[in-house]
Formats: sequence, structure tokens, C-alpha cells
Amino acid sequence: MIQVIEALAIVEANSSKMPGKRIPLGKALCYVLAETVYSHTATPAFRQSAIDGYAFVYSEKQQYDIVGSLQAGEHLNTKLENNQTVRVFPGAFLPDGADTVVTHDYVMSNEKSILITVMPDQFDNIHENVEQIDKIDKNEVVIEANTLITPASIGLLSGLGITEVTVYKKPKIALLVMENELVKTDEKFLKDKIYESNSLMLQAALQTIGIKKTKVFGVKNNFKVIKKALKNSLSKYDIVLISGGVSAGDFDTVKEVLLENEVKELFYKINQKPEGLLFFGKKEETLVFTLSGNPASLLTNFYVYVCPAIKNKMGFGEIYVPKVIRKLNSEITNTSGKTVFLKGLYDETFVTVLEDNSLLLLDTFAKANSVLMVPYNVENVKKGESVALLPIN
Amino acid sequence: MIQVIEALAIVEANSSKMPGKRIPLGKALCYVLAETVYSHTATPAFRQSAIDGYAFVYSEKQQYDIVGSLQAGEHLNTKLENNQTVRVFPGAFLPDGADTVVTHDYVMSNEKSILITVMPDQFDNIHENVEQIDKIDKNEVVIEANTLITPASIGLLSGLGITEVTVYKKPKIALLVMENELVKTDEKFLKDKIYESNSLMLQAALQTIGIKKTKVFGVKNNFKVIKKALKNSLSKYDIVLISGGVSAGDFDTVKEVLLENEVKELFYKINQKPEGLLFFGKKEETLVFTLSGNPASLLTNFYVYVCPAIKNKMGFGEIYVPKVIRKLNSEITNTSGKTVFLKGLYDETFVTVLEDNSLLLLDTFAKANSVLMVPYNVENVKKGESVALLPIN
Repeated sequence: MIQVIEALAIVEANSSKMPGKRIPLGKALCYVLAETVYSHTATPAFRQSAIDGYAFVYSEKQQYDIVGSLQAGEHLNTKLENNQTVRVFPGAFLPDGADTVVTHDYVMSNEKSILITVMPDQFDNIHENVEQIDKIDKNEVVIEANTLITPASIGLLSGLGITEVTVYKKPKIALLVMENELVKTDEKFLKDKIYESNSLMLQAALQTIGIKKTKVFGVKNNFKVIKKALKNSLSKYDIVLISGGVSAGDFDTVKEVLLENEVKELFYKINQKPEGLLFFGKKEETLVFTLSGNPASLLTNFYVYVCPAIKNKMGFGEIYVPKVIRKLNSEITNTSGKTVFLKGLYDETFVTVLEDNSLLLLDTFAKANSVLMVPYNVENVKKGESVALLPIN
Repeated sequence: MIQVIEALAIVEANSSKMPGKRIPLGKALCYVLAETVYSHTATPAFRQSAIDGYAFVYSEKQQYDIVGSLQAGEHLNTKLENNQTVRVFPGAFLPDGADTVVTHDYVMSNEKSILITVMPDQFDNIHENVEQIDKIDKNEVVIEANTLITPASIGLLSGLGITEVTVYKKPKIALLVMENELVKTDEKFLKDKIYESNSLMLQAALQTIGIKKTKVFGVKNNFKVIKKALKNSLSKYDIVLISGGVSAGDFDTVKEVLLENEVKELFYKINQKPEGLLFFGKKEETLVFTLSGNPASLLTNFYVYVCPAIKNKMGFGEIYVPKVIRKLNSEITNTSGKTVFLKGLYDETFVTVLEDNSLLLLDTFAKANSVLMVPYNVENVKKGESVALLPIN
């Protein structure tokens, strides 16, 4: 029996990063960069307009003739004369000669010319290389390795002409569901059975962290069948989740099968509520987790242990999961001597614990937006005290 | 010219919910329920074990013979005698007669019998209907309409045998990208052009809120071409985004095209930095937004205005976007008289503003995890004061 914090450290230490692969930039959202990206090429050395206005060659003159209009990225091939101006939009490259931009708010204009009403200082409203994205030289770092790829970084890389990136692969995940006595949801409801709801739920939970497809194997709770299914999965997948059939009684069978398949046990019993019976093991780089058949316990253990393992393998840094701190809306007493996970609903300021102590009820879980942890050695958390939450969904 | 808060209210008032559609439960993650879901059937009336232990008919006897083992959802067809016990796991249905469960921690056992070392009270450790998921009667509410579907709710519904749900459709989105003078990222970099990076970036940003596919149309910046593209999009899509070509000069063209297509203008100029020029209009139920060609301004306006519109149409309630409040790491001065959006990087306690005042630079945006709003009438926010953030990515 180990403590939650030890279990988490073991999970972290054993979930090594996946290898990298090249993918098109357009498919890279929510992957983590496995390479530092350098610019292919120096970006243009032109100065750009920072604002919506008129570019001109600075002088004390107020009146200028309009000779053109430039959008972001556009460039004029002729040099601007002293009495000329060009309508410019943010990001437009300044014509040769032009050194100042005046905002259109300080200009009176007709189609042919402008009159500047409030004269800016020379060099106002332009982006020199030093302060623009186009400061980037050839082979300069654009984004460091191990950075999560966001819409903005896709825009940035795309804007530099980069079309492919190397990212950490997503782990391939196999889900073995023990088909004990459960009924699939498309069968008729039988009075003394419960529906097999774990596979759909786990697939959905995996989707929330970017694992779009999970291979699900229904496995009869029988030594030979489990052994074969596990053997196949261990060779083809990066993470194997075994759901159901592991509550003490059957645990011996599953554990025997795991050991026969040379899965190295890293832990199997955690001092926690709910469901401390959770086998975590490894064969080569493939991780194996057993998850209790009870849907709510299973989901808790998924969020607490399996999610971080997957995110580690995908190269996520902790920086991408800012912890949520909230004030507790009610007192919590924990005399169990175990670390207790509770379901919480948090708003801007407070977190409400959705029930006393049981994680058996999935309908409460469906209303929660976080999991709250009370350590084994904390007997009491007072109303108004701050607690850290693990946001879910 | 309107204020940001007025613009947001107009967006909210005009982005009505999409119609509902039936979809398989397994595809329902991140949709919002358009119906209240009732149970098809009453769930079993049995009592279930709340813990891992042994069920027995309460008496003062300490010793009982083991007659079976029950997993979650399993049921024994015979009645338990006074001297018998059944190994039960959480969620197992108690055999007839059994009324108490003792935790396995308080039991000594061999394969045939147990000896209870610490006697529980009668009725301990069982879930009666009143406190279990199986309290649900036929036609009882399981999940209310307008609730976001999470992994836990998929587990809950699946466990009740529900295989389909009615959800609000996701809006179909067309993205018209003005192909002014921009170069696609697979073409050779030209010194005086910038790459067309908006379409990939916007598609990625849409994916983060569950819009997997966006139809992108490259449109030459020419009156007839824009008019035709807009006409087609208005009839087939729920939201039309027009990116680029809308910085003042071209705005007149685009606006004319919008009016010729009978798009009703709701606003087009907001008192904000960056990029207050943002047309928002409506034709029947189709919404139209124009977004500036500058990638960073565009992304800001996307997060601030377009995201809430899409989420409203998808039926999201505010409850699903808990605001993030953090202490400011530095002083902010805003003498512009405009509402200013800044890029922020927040951790557990603080938010750091990533740059002074310009939203032109996409490389800074790629490092940000939030947008911070300083209202037009707030000239100063002091270091250490709390500010509300809009988390992004």
C-alpha cells in the first residue's frame, strides 16, 4: 500500500515521452513540439506600419498627395516623394523613403490628398525589425521544443512559411473491458445487470485530452482469453487500460495474467478512497493500468493517474494545466486515514463538494467540474480554506 | 462606435441556439443537451453494496460461510441464510435477506468462511435506492436540458441503457479569406509578401471549441467575386467569417457587398484596441463577422466575439466557462480611452502581461494562455489587484 503522492511520482517517472513524428502544421493543434523550430529564412527587412493611417516622408508640410494604398503585407515598388503619401493598414510595408505614419484620426482627406491636423513625431507608428515578428533572422528560434501547439503558434509558424513540424506522437491506447456479467447498452435492460458503460465513458474522457480513437476489446473474464488479449495489446499499443474485473476477487487472475506476460508491477494498491486497487505496470515502454469496474471510481482514477501518464507521454509540461485554487464552501472531515477524492463544482470564487464521501454515484460526477483531494493525513479542512482542484471535462 | 460590453451584449442577443438533432451517445461529447433526458425504465430496486466486503444477514454471530462472490451489477438468485455470507464488491446487488455489509478490513477469512473482528451496525455500508443511481424511476429526469455532455454524463446515460440523445447542432462555419496579395504557406517566400496564415490559425481556434471542420474559401479581393462567395455562404452556413481585406480601405467594398446581400448590420466599430473595426451582422439566422487581416488582432477578436457566438449557438451556458481571476504582476496604464485587450500568461496565483500594449505580434500570442481586458474607463490597474481573464487555447 502506497500513498497517492508516491503513486503519482511513480506514474510520472515511468511515462516517458513518445518518439517524434513529422506532421503537417494544419494537423498539429494540441500536439507538443518535439523539436525547436527555427525560421527557414530571414523575414523581410522592411519597416511596417503599426496602425491604420498614412505613411509619408517626415517634414513640416501638412498636405500630401495620395499615390496608393497598401494592405498588410503589401509593398510599393516606387520611392515616395516628399509631397506624397500612401494609405497604409497595419502590417503594410512602408515604401522606400517613408519614415513616419500618421493615424487616420488626425487626417482630413478626400480621394486625392490629405491634410494632417495633428502632426506625429518622426518615426512614429512604425514597426522596425527590432520589435516585429519580422525581426526573425534565418535559423533563429521561433518556438522552443516541448511547447504545446496552440492556434496562435499555428498562425505564427504558418506566417513564416513553415508547413510541417515534428511533434511527440500520441500514445496508441487499447482498452480491455471485462465482459463479466454486463449488458451492452443496445441490449434489453435486465433487472439484475448493469450496463457496460465504461468503454464509452473512457473513450469520451480520452477524447477530452486529444486521444481521438481508442481501440476497445471486449474480453470474457477468463484466464486464457485475458492472457491472449493482453499479449496482443502489449505488443501493439503504448498504453493498455483494463477496465472491470479487478475488484480483489478477480484481481488475482488479472495480476497473474499480467505477470505471465512479463508486465513489471510498479504498484497496485493505493491508500485512497475510492478504489485504491489500481495496478500500474510496464512492459518495455508500454504502460498498463487496471481500473475498477465501478464507473465513478474508474473515472476518478482515470483523471488522477491515467491522464497525467498520457500527457507526459505526449510531452505536455505542467505549465499547461494551471491548478485551480478555490475557497471551500463547507467543512470536510476525513478520519479515514486515506487520501480521499471528492467531486467538486467550482465557480469564480468557491468550490462546493457535491456529496459527502462516496464516489460511487456517477450522476453526481456528471454535475462536477473538478476533483478535490484531501490528503490522508489531513483530518479537517475548514469552510473558507483554500483547496487545489483538478479541473475535469 | 460602441463599447465592448455593448458589442458583447449584441452578439449574445443575436446568436440564437441551433436546432436539435438526434445523435448516438458515443458521439455526444462536448455537445449540449437540447432535451431533458428521462430514464427509459426504472432501475433495479435492489440494494447495492457501497464497499468492498462481505454481505450478511445481520446478527450477533461472528462466523459465516462464504457461498459466492458478486461484482458490481451482479445478483445472486438464492436467498441468504443466517449463517451465510457473500463476498461483494462496490455496486454488487445484495442477495435477498442480506441487510448489512462488513468491510474486508474487519474480517479474517479463508476460502470457506469468515470471522468478523469488528461488527458493523445493521444496514451499514449499503446503498438503498434513495441514495443510489438506481433510485431512478421510469420517466424520472436523469440530466436536464442545456447541460454540457461530459465523459461522466456519457457513462451515466450509457449505464441507464440510453443510446441516443438530442443535442444542439454545431453551427456550420464558412471562412472567406481575402486572397489579396498573400502567399500560401506552400509557395516560395517572397520578400514583400506575408504568408496567408489566418485560415490555418482560425481552423485550429475553431477546433478548440469543438468545430472540427470549417469550409475555407479563398476569395479574390474583387467586388463580384466577394459578392458571389458571400451569397453562396449565407445560404449554406450558420456563421460566415470574413478574414482580411476589411481594414478601412477595403471595408467599404465588403460592407457594400454585405448590404447588397441583405445582411443586417448590428455593429461594425468598437471602441477597443486592437482592431475595433469588426462588422457583425445577420441574415435570417446566419451570422457574419469580418475579422481584420492582422493575425493577432484577428485572433483576439475571434476569442472575444466569435467564440461566445458559437458557444451560444451550441447551447453552452456560462457555467461551463468559469472565469479565471488572478493578481496582476505589474501595473497597467490605459489612457487610450479605449477598452484594451492584452495577452496574459497566468499561473496559480498571478497573471503576467506579456507585452505593453500592442496586439500585433503573434509570437507573443503563441506564449499567452489568456486575454486580459482593461475597460476604456479604467486608467490604471495596480500591481497586486485582481483581474478577470479569458482563458484561451
